[in-house]
Amino acid sequence: MRLISYRHQGRAGVGVMAGDDAFVSLGAAAPDLPANLRLIIALPDWQARVRRAVEGRKPDLRLADVKLDPVIIDPNAIWALALNYQSHLDETGLTTSKEYPQIFLRHAQSQVGAGEPILCPPPSVGRAYDYEGELAVVIGRGGRFIPRDKAMDHVAGYSIYNEGSVREFQSHNRQFGLGKNFERSGSFGPWLMTPDEFGNPYEKLVMTRLNGKTRQRESIGHLIFKVEDLIHYLSLGHKLRPGDVIVTGTPGALKPDAGDREAQIEAHVKTGGVQYAGRVHMKPGDVCEVEIEGLGILRNPVIADEAGYRPD
Amino acid sequence: MRLISYRHQGRAGVGVMAGDDAFVSLGAAAPDLPANLRLIIALPDWQARVRRAVEGRKPDLRLADVKLDPVIIDPNAIWALALNYQSHLDETGLTTSKEYPQIFLRHAQSQVGAGEPILCPPPSVGRAYDYEGELAVVIGRGGRFIPRDKAMDHVAGYSIYNEGSVREFQSHNRQFGLGKNFERSGSFGPWLMTPDEFGNPYEKLVMTRLNGKTRQRESIGHLIFKVEDLIHYLSLGHKLRPGDVIVTGTPGALKPDAGDREAQIEAHVKTGGVQYAGRVHMKPGDVCEVEIEGLGILRNPVIADEAGYRPD
Repeated sequence: MRLISYRHQGRAGVGVMAGDDAFVSLGAAAPDLPANLRLIIALPDWQARVRRAVEGRKPDLRLADVKLDPVIIDPNAIWALALNYQSHLDETGLTTSKEYPQIFLRHAQSQVGAGEPILCPPPSVGRAYDYEGELAVVIGRGGRFIPRDKAMDHVAGYSIYNEGSVREFQSHNRQFGLGKNFERSGSFGPWLMTPDEFGNPYEKLVMTRLNGKTRQRESIGHLIFKVEDLIHYLSLGHKLRPGDVIVTGTPGALKPDAGDREAQIEAHVKTGGVQYAGRVHMKPGDVCEVEIEGLGILRNPVIADEAGYRPD
Repeated sequence: MRLISYRHQGRAGVGVMAGDDAFVSLGAAAPDLPANLRLIIALPDWQARVRRAVEGRKPDLRLADVKLDPVIIDPNAIWALALNYQSHLDETGLTTSKEYPQIFLRHAQSQVGAGEPILCPPPSVGRAYDYEGELAVVIGRGGRFIPRDKAMDHVAGYSIYNEGSVREFQSHNRQFGLGKNFERSGSFGPWLMTPDEFGNPYEKLVMTRLNGKTRQRESIGHLIFKVEDLIHYLSLGHKLRPGDVIVTGTPGALKPDAGDREAQIEAHVKTGGVQYAGRVHMKPGDVCEVEIEGLGILRNPVIADEAGYRPD
């Protein structure tokens, strides 16, 4: 089952995909369920209720008619992983603890849904705006001190994340803070896929394409800290809650080829400490896609953010 | 004017303090205003509307009759500062950029309101659970690319933060992530004080007392990156929104005295890389108070969190 959070005529709704272009809106099929995916997956019997509600119904809306929101629009916390693939350690020359994952937070305003434009910072602010294709895990049942062998029971489903990063700000100081939380710099979607449909995440590839050219391609099986490890670790300190998101980290980029020469020059601009020699940055006019095998494609156009004082 | 977020008979409300023990509930005085402080301060004329609503009214509830929530219960983002006082740099032996602030995020479940217990981790999880008394700034008017000389126009008011930190987890890896976001480890309150009433933050002292003994005492004027700098910097990447919180960083602790000898032994337990030689950690049964001159006192009892699998 694949569930989307969408906006239609200004109203938020949750839908269940039927094929790849259309869906059943739960507002029509199950008016007793909340119109919010975080609240739905907090219900202990949510999967059975949703399946019953959509059984035998024809899709009533098309993806083309709505805007997709981030899969969870109002998560309690978005936990993100730094340096969780060896290939990303290799390309950055950085190190990480072998014992403990490296974790930071994103907030909900730093992300958009599938199809929505993501914002490239003005050149005066940052030039190294990078894609990071990642597997996102959405918590269903919450808990504290979750043992590794129970961790997967707490997963509502999986999604795709483009953990867009502004390298200059990420490396201004030791904590990533703002560089990982630029306005609408990341993307989360297109849908939540339940574990029964997705299968074993460690047998799938994550791939990132910029303007159609593959830039990342790696098995999710190469995660250093696996989903079970992350759920266990986080729950030692934090009560995981329905709708909490764990963005599991990004693999290294593929090596640039001869055709990337010009882009590479740009990529080699010193970014204040962290250099990603193989990276071709995102710029306005690009289209970035992150695909996870069997899960789907998260596609976003890149548009220019503007500088200048804008009180709100 | 001092505004509180509270819970009375299970319902959330906003109040305006009248003296130090009682308040006017806005639910009664201004039923047309939202029952949520973040939404109130998003209204362009909120101060005038609130003042009109409470003028001449007698307080209708006492602090003793309600539970205080964090001042903003549902902020879009809580930005927190690492190493923003020289005295904290000195005690940790760490360094920071002179050009750019060091920023991380907290999430709303890591904090409680004034008077509510904060949770000390079980010893099996962490032993170095530390107070960090700080000035909190709450954004009123949002914006992007806010110049330093307009920054203070975007402040709704000030509050007090105990940025409770679990040092072992903070230093498990380079990003603070979980160590700064333990369940109910921090505190935010007791109220939002408007800038006209608080005056110049840089002329005030921040003081932390553990069981009545002063542990931190420093002028907020010693902030390395000032409130204006932080608002400007954050707005380069993020659209500041009403209710965003900026927790400005903590000063170093005072040197322990002879009476602290036993506590100090505990304090010297190696905490995985970050040692705070002068720190007396918080433990169950303690009471921690952070006071900011002219703003108030944020007081919380410390209770023990429990280990063990608790699915939710």
